[in-house]
Amino acid sequence: MNLDNFFKAKSIAIIGVSSSPAKVGHVLFRNLIDAGYKGKVLPVNPKLKSLLRYKVYKSIVDIKEKVELAVIAIPAELVLKAVTECYKKKIKDVLIVTAGFKEVGKGNLEDELKFYLESHDMRMIGVNCLGTLDLHKNVDLIFLPRSRLKRPEAGNISFITQSGAIGSAIFDLAASNGYKFSKFISYGNATVIDESDIIEYLIKDKSTEVICMYLEGVQNGSKFFESLKKAARIKPVIVVKGGVSEEGSKAAKSHTGSLAGSSDVYFGIFKQVGVIIAENLEQMLYYASTFSKIRKIKGNRVAIITNGGGYGIITTDAVSKSSNLKLAALSEKIKHELKMKINNDLVSLDNPIDVVGDANTERYQLALDACMKDDNVDAVVMIVLYQTPLITTDIVDVISEYNLNKKKPILVVSTGGIFTKILRESLEENNVMTFSFPEHAIDALSKLAEYNKIKQK
Amino acid sequence: MNLDNFFKAKSIAIIGVSSSPAKVGHVLFRNLIDAGYKGKVLPVNPKLKSLLRYKVYKSIVDIKEKVELAVIAIPAELVLKAVTECYKKKIKDVLIVTAGFKEVGKGNLEDELKFYLESHDMRMIGVNCLGTLDLHKNVDLIFLPRSRLKRPEAGNISFITQSGAIGSAIFDLAASNGYKFSKFISYGNATVIDESDIIEYLIKDKSTEVICMYLEGVQNGSKFFESLKKAARIKPVIVVKGGVSEEGSKAAKSHTGSLAGSSDVYFGIFKQVGVIIAENLEQMLYYASTFSKIRKIKGNRVAIITNGGGYGIITTDAVSKSSNLKLAALSEKIKHELKMKINNDLVSLDNPIDVVGDANTERYQLALDACMKDDNVDAVVMIVLYQTPLITTDIVDVISEYNLNKKKPILVVSTGGIFTKILRESLEENNVMTFSFPEHAIDALSKLAEYNKIKQK
Repeated sequence: MNLDNFFKAKSIAIIGVSSSPAKVGHVLFRNLIDAGYKGKVLPVNPKLKSLLRYKVYKSIVDIKEKVELAVIAIPAELVLKAVTECYKKKIKDVLIVTAGFKEVGKGNLEDELKFYLESHDMRMIGVNCLGTLDLHKNVDLIFLPRSRLKRPEAGNISFITQSGAIGSAIFDLAASNGYKFSKFISYGNATVIDESDIIEYLIKDKSTEVICMYLEGVQNGSKFFESLKKAARIKPVIVVKGGVSEEGSKAAKSHTGSLAGSSDVYFGIFKQVGVIIAENLEQMLYYASTFSKIRKIKGNRVAIITNGGGYGIITTDAVSKSSNLKLAALSEKIKHELKMKINNDLVSLDNPIDVVGDANTERYQLALDACMKDDNVDAVVMIVLYQTPLITTDIVDVISEYNLNKKKPILVVSTGGIFTKILRESLEENNVMTFSFPEHAIDALSKLAEYNKIKQK
Repeated sequence: MNLDNFFKAKSIAIIGVSSSPAKVGHVLFRNLIDAGYKGKVLPVNPKLKSLLRYKVYKSIVDIKEKVELAVIAIPAELVLKAVTECYKKKIKDVLIVTAGFKEVGKGNLEDELKFYLESHDMRMIGVNCLGTLDLHKNVDLIFLPRSRLKRPEAGNISFITQSGAIGSAIFDLAASNGYKFSKFISYGNATVIDESDIIEYLIKDKSTEVICMYLEGVQNGSKFFESLKKAARIKPVIVVKGGVSEEGSKAAKSHTGSLAGSSDVYFGIFKQVGVIIAENLEQMLYYASTFSKIRKIKGNRVAIITNGGGYGIITTDAVSKSSNLKLAALSEKIKHELKMKINNDLVSLDNPIDVVGDANTERYQLALDACMKDDNVDAVVMIVLYQTPLITTDIVDVISEYNLNKKKPILVVSTGGIFTKILRESLEENNVMTFSFPEHAIDALSKLAEYNKIKQK
């Protein structure tokens, strides 16, 4: 199914704009303008003449020019009528954010709408959803204010979510952590276009390299299975499943009106088709960001470089606990060379390599260079604690330089406050994956190793 | 052992000050001044006459007035001589940050020092440590610059750490997250004063209500066991153990020169004495902060209030997975009353209570009030997603008000960016415990329930 108009439409009508800033129709209109959308925005409301200097149309049929996408934000009882008018205006693509359908027991209202849309060959995302967003095209159709929900920068991760709230909260967090996204799709009740249609679309979408998904339940299991299987073969697909417990599943039913179904079945399918399962949203976020920056790892042998002994130890513990990774045994020749170059009794050159508290950028560079050269090492986890005074900011350049050739994954762990945050952001800007905690870095690396092992089969 | 002078000394000499800003001796001197320390600071260095307008003494014995604590930051070979001079000057308390003793194979040097100190009845924290800090008294003796390592505000959590790097990184992170601390003690090689002595001191310390600890290994197991047992009876003690794997334990040996020993033995002791085990530093931090704000929970029945359906579901999943908690069944009477008051078809009043996306502060207040009244509820987890436009900032006052009487724990989950961070900080200022992710909130609540169950036995 071609969903291009939801992300690239050149003209968008918003049915149900409002002059009241807190109303959904107003926020949608405002966001699209504030996002810097380059196309034509056409507000519709029978009671208004103009809004923010835009002419407001009484009805969608009054618009003379071509409309590629209609966004509907009016009460549930009025939605069907608006849709019939869209059809008259030859609009085939509709985004309906309105709630109050089957999720509150009004299944008839939704069935009627579904029947009309399908029999008129119209594509619809919604109902009961938060909207969609394309960060490359500035098509911002999320109905939450940009002042409260910061949008991430444009990147290569797309996020499909059955829950608008989860989508928006995670998006807001992702933005403030510097994670970069391509598309966001909250599909709500999946009345016409469902999760499988969206996955199929994202498989072909060139600006999407990683697919993330929050899912409660699906209506059509075999369709879902097929699209997931196809997707996972081509791009990393990371899924968080909500409603895994009996009580959670019950809550899911009243949420989007969909049965969460047996989680065992879902997890069975996920594993079978090679989907990456995340236990929670935090994990989903750092998995997605890691896969968006790093795709390949040759083996499972990890070298650790640290300026804090304790951090080396807990990172080593995390590697030991992981079933997918092991500690690299550095080659004696390279270790010897490094010893000559560093020439400091306090430095420990067994893995974890402890460059100790007075390490400067040069000492880090020597250790990193050795690990990159050593054939016994498949990935490097660098712990850089910026609290020590001798690390200069040029360490960002050193790490970024080695990261450029993508020869081996380099993951950086830096725990701290504001000073640390600035340096982490510089690394992220240069496409280096960074973490606050070593356990998260090792967890992400472990998923990467697992993914590569499955791909090789 | 009375360790008061390490935290409350009225006059502190720093042996080994330097005019070079990157040197440890300089940073120590500078930090103590910048912290706003009210006592007398006395710098010592035979080669300097003055530093930052302070008179520098050639030797500690040249100081006429009384010195309550000496901080030593000079090369390892010179430490013993400095200590003998401290003894001459009648200083009984010494903090030695210098490294280069048994952790690099120079056990003799350390043994000699230990023998001198003990036979002269002197107390010493170190060697090979980062220093100590009292946030209530502004006694800042951590040798990392305040510009790179932000210090937390004064509070009731004290943190004992065998690793300086872990201590400093976590402290820096804690400061930027608004967590509040009382004392920080990096004890390094534990040459004279060890972890057990520090625990014993903190048991009696009135400004310490929660004890946190990062530990690799101890020398005297039975002493440690006894002090831990005593402490855990009086205050929550939260421990992270480093070197739990064989490889991690090996790395620990070269770090602080102490054997990490069998982790099974440690964990056996922790469980036996009622210590709270944290799996990692992130967990330690949010456990500590939770226990610093909330101590009591009557039972294990949790009510969830959310403005995002998906968040209700994943929080319910987390409660279901926890062996210590269960979902509260709200009483019919209170549910009925709440239904009348809220009067909105979209709102779901089964637990999780979904006040939906257009919830305003009043609707939250009604739901929270009902949960606080309901005898079937022991704790309330409130999910407040600030991305929706109708929540006004006065929700901070509402939650803080109900939190005041400590009747039931209230934990708030808010995921998001800058706007969210500001409102979370306001809640934290009012002593309300907040989280970014529901799983962390449920995990902390679960530990709280477990702790209360053990205490009741």
